[in-house]
Amino acid sequence: MEVPPPLVLKRQLFVPSKTLMGPGPSNCSQRVLEAMSNPVLGHMHPECLQIMDEVKEGIKYIFQTLNDATMCISGSGHSGMEAALCNLIEDNDVVLMGISGVWGHRAADMARRYNADVRYVEASFSRALTLDEIRFAFDTHKPRVFFIAQGDSSTGILQRHIPEIGELCQQHDCFLVVDVVASLGGTNFLMDEWKVDVAYTGSQKSLGGPAGLTPISFSKRAMTHIRQRKSKPKVYYFDVLLLGQYWGCYGTPRIYHHTISTTLLYGLREALAHFCAMGLRNVVQRHQECSARLQLGIEELGLEMFVQEEKDRLPTVNTIKVPFGIDWRKVADYAMRKYNLEVSGGLGPTVEHVFRIGLMGENATLEKVDMVLSILNEAIHSIKLRAVKTERSKI
Amino acid sequence: MEVPPPLVLKRQLFVPSKTLMGPGPSNCSQRVLEAMSNPVLGHMHPECLQIMDEVKEGIKYIFQTLNDATMCISGSGHSGMEAALCNLIEDNDVVLMGISGVWGHRAADMARRYNADVRYVEASFSRALTLDEIRFAFDTHKPRVFFIAQGDSSTGILQRHIPEIGELCQQHDCFLVVDVVASLGGTNFLMDEWKVDVAYTGSQKSLGGPAGLTPISFSKRAMTHIRQRKSKPKVYYFDVLLLGQYWGCYGTPRIYHHTISTTLLYGLREALAHFCAMGLRNVVQRHQECSARLQLGIEELGLEMFVQEEKDRLPTVNTIKVPFGIDWRKVADYAMRKYNLEVSGGLGPTVEHVFRIGLMGENATLEKVDMVLSILNEAIHSIKLRAVKTERSKI
Repeated sequence: MEVPPPLVLKRQLFVPSKTLMGPGPSNCSQRVLEAMSNPVLGHMHPECLQIMDEVKEGIKYIFQTLNDATMCISGSGHSGMEAALCNLIEDNDVVLMGISGVWGHRAADMARRYNADVRYVEASFSRALTLDEIRFAFDTHKPRVFFIAQGDSSTGILQRHIPEIGELCQQHDCFLVVDVVASLGGTNFLMDEWKVDVAYTGSQKSLGGPAGLTPISFSKRAMTHIRQRKSKPKVYYFDVLLLGQYWGCYGTPRIYHHTISTTLLYGLREALAHFCAMGLRNVVQRHQECSARLQLGIEELGLEMFVQEEKDRLPTVNTIKVPFGIDWRKVADYAMRKYNLEVSGGLGPTVEHVFRIGLMGENATLEKVDMVLSILNEAIHSIKLRAVKTERSKI
Repeated sequence: MEVPPPLVLKRQLFVPSKTLMGPGPSNCSQRVLEAMSNPVLGHMHPECLQIMDEVKEGIKYIFQTLNDATMCISGSGHSGMEAALCNLIEDNDVVLMGISGVWGHRAADMARRYNADVRYVEASFSRALTLDEIRFAFDTHKPRVFFIAQGDSSTGILQRHIPEIGELCQQHDCFLVVDVVASLGGTNFLMDEWKVDVAYTGSQKSLGGPAGLTPISFSKRAMTHIRQRKSKPKVYYFDVLLLGQYWGCYGTPRIYHHTISTTLLYGLREALAHFCAMGLRNVVQRHQECSARLQLGIEELGLEMFVQEEKDRLPTVNTIKVPFGIDWRKVADYAMRKYNLEVSGGLGPTVEHVFRIGLMGENATLEKVDMVLSILNEAIHSIKLRAVKTERSKI
């Protein structure tokens, strides 16, 4: 033995309580947190399989789908993105990425590793892709797979035309992958009606569950394609034929695929139960009301939203331009230091340019909106004042 | 809205308390369970990064390594296996699988998806691979990567010759991947001294943490190879260059790679803290004492261990031959129904042939050994008696 036990692990674990109003994770309710201290179960125990079945039904509801191939990936939202692409893509397939922030680029990085021929259709800064742009790109590239985020959390842009894109994909014999990680719960999403082939969402956003399990669903059409692939999907861990067998999706006996975290299952189950009890329509309406109030408040504070068109704004992750001369980091630090409140800066194309304020799940209430507005205002003024004082002290 | 909210989610969550003495997960301590009901944190918050650092130090201790590239995959043990292979393998690399149960075959399934040229070296039933067999296979196949499980949980076989295999791999310019999912804590493992290139373990076995985060470590030699790859690893989610950046392994700024589950981090941190406080040597000794007592008890009950050689037996997952004429399922059902105790059947080559009794973490105590022996005995006798009665009733 040469490596001694680390001293840091002799300290007690300390976890502060924060209000998480960045782009996610959002806070879990007490119900969800308490569920996760339940004893662990075996991954093939009937009680575990029962909870998986319940989670599956919950996901079908929130996605509005009857797809048999509805389950979770045991990983973060990124693993959902990767599982969607990995199961659909075969060597040299043309994959078109609809870009309105960082997520299309992330998907491109993944798809290229699977030997996809990646193409792009990109909106100019701070607006959503138009249908005409997408149609033109389809005619140019003739994609086999089209990827788009319904809500891009890096820019706060909402893509409203998923139904029309669904039609377009049917016409072009193209599979439609929609990332609803940040958007679900904040805007309508009707997987079956809109003819979406693969959708996945984050458990730690509007659902208010823990990170680490990613709800995903594959259409019948996608599954037919996957069953007829020439080669196996490149990743065992993401193989939806094997994973769906474990999740009991195909009416065949359950076969062990990996050891699921029952702890996370309990948390997600309780988050879904709460979400279902409130009702999808009500949840969406509440998120939209909160965002409307936030946008009004932002205007009243003399600040400006980043996304030009009001109807292109994602209600769950709101992007606000950082006022000229203000360092967003100092504002975020102020809010965290004084109020344990997380407001976030930008990501990718919006780095340094925006604040991101998440209104999701437990934090999508009018009281929280008023709180974050008031703290944001106080923080900006305090930083401005400090800057003036520093200037004066130089004179 | 066409899909109604599911009725099953209106029921209360109910999780029974069981004693998990199958091949894992094992029970988590109350300390670990309680840690997991702490509030969630952002995946880039300093408190989260601090816990990641502490977990990293804990992993270095339990693996006895100074490797910088030490971290967790956000997924089950299978994702650790896949990450190990995915980062090392390039197209057409010869990958040799050392087989003493199902895990080499599972690794083969994964490696083939990465276009590896997969070869096998396989021991005959119920014994460990010998060094001569492995040496011969190296001469025949000239592998680029060699995979072996230190403990194969499907057969209960322990591979004792990892140090010599490490030497062999150095001589053949081959990378050594060792799966210590089931063995860690139950037997010595000295990653650096034994020249292991990649090792990963399960958090939910002897560590007593929750499933869902998989400790993994890459040697300097492996990292040099990975940095010089001709192509990127096939899977973004498992890319150790990106993941290690997020885990702060390379002295470069932390960059967001995915949203880690802070809930699981808390649990793993507390499990590691407990493990480190007890001390690696003591933990290993305790597991071995428990297994010795179990083996003695099994003999006294007139039962027989599956693995022939005593020194080839894995102390953590003990395989016991199912007595002739007994249905293992009935025995396991009896133990579960009457005592909420999990003992497990076989897997892969041992299905129907063995009971698997896990002595791991919280369940590696002499009291638990005596309990499981007594219940096993009672269950077998009860099933025999029932069989006799059924026979008689036919007369």
